[in-house]
Amino acid sequence: MNKTFHAIERALPHIQVLHAYVPGDQPQGDGWVKLNTNENPYPSSPKVASAVTAEIDYLRKYPEPVSHKLRSAIGERYDLSAKNVIIGNGSDNILDLITRCFVDGAGATHTVPSYSLYHVVTGMSGKTLTDIPFTREIKLDIPAIVATNAAATFLTSPNAPTGVAFPLSEIESILQQIDGLLIVDEAYVDFGGETAMPLLKNYENLIVVRTFSKSYSLAGMRVGFALAAPQIISILDRVRDAYNLDRIAQAAALAAFQDTEYFEAQCKKVIATRETTASALDKLGWFTYPSAANFLFTEPKTTDGSTGPEIAASLFEHLKASRVLVRYFPKHPLTCAFIRVSIGTDSEMQAFLNASKSWLNHA
Amino acid sequence: MNKTFHAIERALPHIQVLHAYVPGDQPQGDGWVKLNTNENPYPSSPKVASAVTAEIDYLRKYPEPVSHKLRSAIGERYDLSAKNVIIGNGSDNILDLITRCFVDGAGATHTVPSYSLYHVVTGMSGKTLTDIPFTREIKLDIPAIVATNAAATFLTSPNAPTGVAFPLSEIESILQQIDGLLIVDEAYVDFGGETAMPLLKNYENLIVVRTFSKSYSLAGMRVGFALAAPQIISILDRVRDAYNLDRIAQAAALAAFQDTEYFEAQCKKVIATRETTASALDKLGWFTYPSAANFLFTEPKTTDGSTGPEIAASLFEHLKASRVLVRYFPKHPLTCAFIRVSIGTDSEMQAFLNASKSWLNHA
Repeated sequence: MNKTFHAIERALPHIQVLHAYVPGDQPQGDGWVKLNTNENPYPSSPKVASAVTAEIDYLRKYPEPVSHKLRSAIGERYDLSAKNVIIGNGSDNILDLITRCFVDGAGATHTVPSYSLYHVVTGMSGKTLTDIPFTREIKLDIPAIVATNAAATFLTSPNAPTGVAFPLSEIESILQQIDGLLIVDEAYVDFGGETAMPLLKNYENLIVVRTFSKSYSLAGMRVGFALAAPQIISILDRVRDAYNLDRIAQAAALAAFQDTEYFEAQCKKVIATRETTASALDKLGWFTYPSAANFLFTEPKTTDGSTGPEIAASLFEHLKASRVLVRYFPKHPLTCAFIRVSIGTDSEMQAFLNASKSWLNHA
Repeated sequence: MNKTFHAIERALPHIQVLHAYVPGDQPQGDGWVKLNTNENPYPSSPKVASAVTAEIDYLRKYPEPVSHKLRSAIGERYDLSAKNVIIGNGSDNILDLITRCFVDGAGATHTVPSYSLYHVVTGMSGKTLTDIPFTREIKLDIPAIVATNAAATFLTSPNAPTGVAFPLSEIESILQQIDGLLIVDEAYVDFGGETAMPLLKNYENLIVVRTFSKSYSLAGMRVGFALAAPQIISILDRVRDAYNLDRIAQAAALAAFQDTEYFEAQCKKVIATRETTASALDKLGWFTYPSAANFLFTEPKTTDGSTGPEIAASLFEHLKASRVLVRYFPKHPLTCAFIRVSIGTDSEMQAFLNASKSWLNHA
């Protein structure tokens, strides 16, 4: 070795201490009932396939850089314009852009528990993130949020991992009181939450973030979007990779977005299955948060009435051994006694319930 | 409006002054001879089509997060391992990751003229970028590069926009003398440059960056990669979006990468057309840099022997009016008397030469 390089010591101080986001398991191979990463159990619109294949002959050419067709379609749908829209390589990409552009020494705020990526994006930019803890009721502590005086507040609504939706009046109350930006992350809103979109006309300090990963069945394509005032979008565009979305991602997302009939039908099916599954968990006597999302956060209880971290971990492992993959978050007091189960097809949920009952018989 | 938000004033200071990268024109509609963004005139490998369509049924599921198959294939090809490889959403994405992780107050260095994105990525992170000017000979000023003491030095090799390749001995000499990282951006190396890959075994301060956009005919899919010591890759992975590459991009790139026979045949065709075109320009008496890339940088000369910015601008406009799109960089003394023409098919180059000759008759 003619020249060594100690990368960890040479990385910037905030990178040295950064922990990357840990995605849910993506098991390779078949045979899994995969209910761990909130994917949609139904395929994307049949129109996506033809949109994808139509691009194949043009892959040698750069994509249109700003995803203009997609911006226009989205802006129009929400009674705004293309200038109110940015498209990201997944909504994660947009959360990073927001942090890079607007989070200064005042730092950012988020509610806990919520999406762990907020830690990663603020950490990547060397900024602080203040936790506003929920109580078990998952109610917003608005005075505490306002008191942080953050440059940006991230709010997942409906909340993850509980699925609890927040009233629009509470979101508006935050917008009225804060001086910084409120980023309402509506990854799951199509499954029953109340959208903050109507507030965009009156609150320039609002950014609404959405994704094609869940309700549009395009997790594999990495497309997210955000709506905000044009002057915010224009700043975010400065930091966006010039060609951040490939040709096929743009075409697939547009086809999925325009097929509203298919979209609504799939969302309804997921919601119906969620409600059936929630009822079944009620019958087991497990506490489950009322969910406006495509997952349920449930507190498993043994036949002798015990709950707690060991119980949840035991169920998680039993399910995994039965090839049913759910998500378990052991690190937080409000999550460690629960498991999060994504809504699959009816038969996948039956497999989950059957495996849970077999666990009950052994636990 | 209940709440206003002055985005430009609220953006971080370095974002307020940032100018986004300006990509070359992507004209919509047909009828253009498009020689302005160094796209490959030939389609990607026929194996790409089947790889793309095979993914369509799985788009509802997240991609494998680290692009492992692609990392393994690339590592193996260059006699290294998957641990030496990172995959980016375009090589632009990787240049940004490098800057975010390793460029501290010491700033970065690049040679000028070269790829204008280095300005953007350092600006996005609020870091300084020192220019090391070339003379007209496009020789590396190694003592000046070393003297900047930069955290990272970006070197496009072969150079863009001139196409000039640098000897490996000079790159090794830089690696020996600098304390920071040398990023050798080999976007065009498959068209004839000498790769710095063999130096990776002895220089941990080297990062070699490549792209699928040019030689693999996949500009539309946004896939780049970099090779470096495992400890560098592992730091870059901390800042990478967890799912930075969609399913189809991973599959398309792998199929293109593995079809080496097709790849080499297309590269040879581009090189042959480049040499024919260079000879034709020589016959016109235009000075053209010897190119190891898929473009030529040529100084148009009128029939009365005049050269200069007005001449180059006049040719550029004449070509555009003839629906032949090339690139013109008016802002730098070493580029303003030249045009950069990407290598297209033989008939596209003939269209370019014909339009140039018609300009000569009028200029």
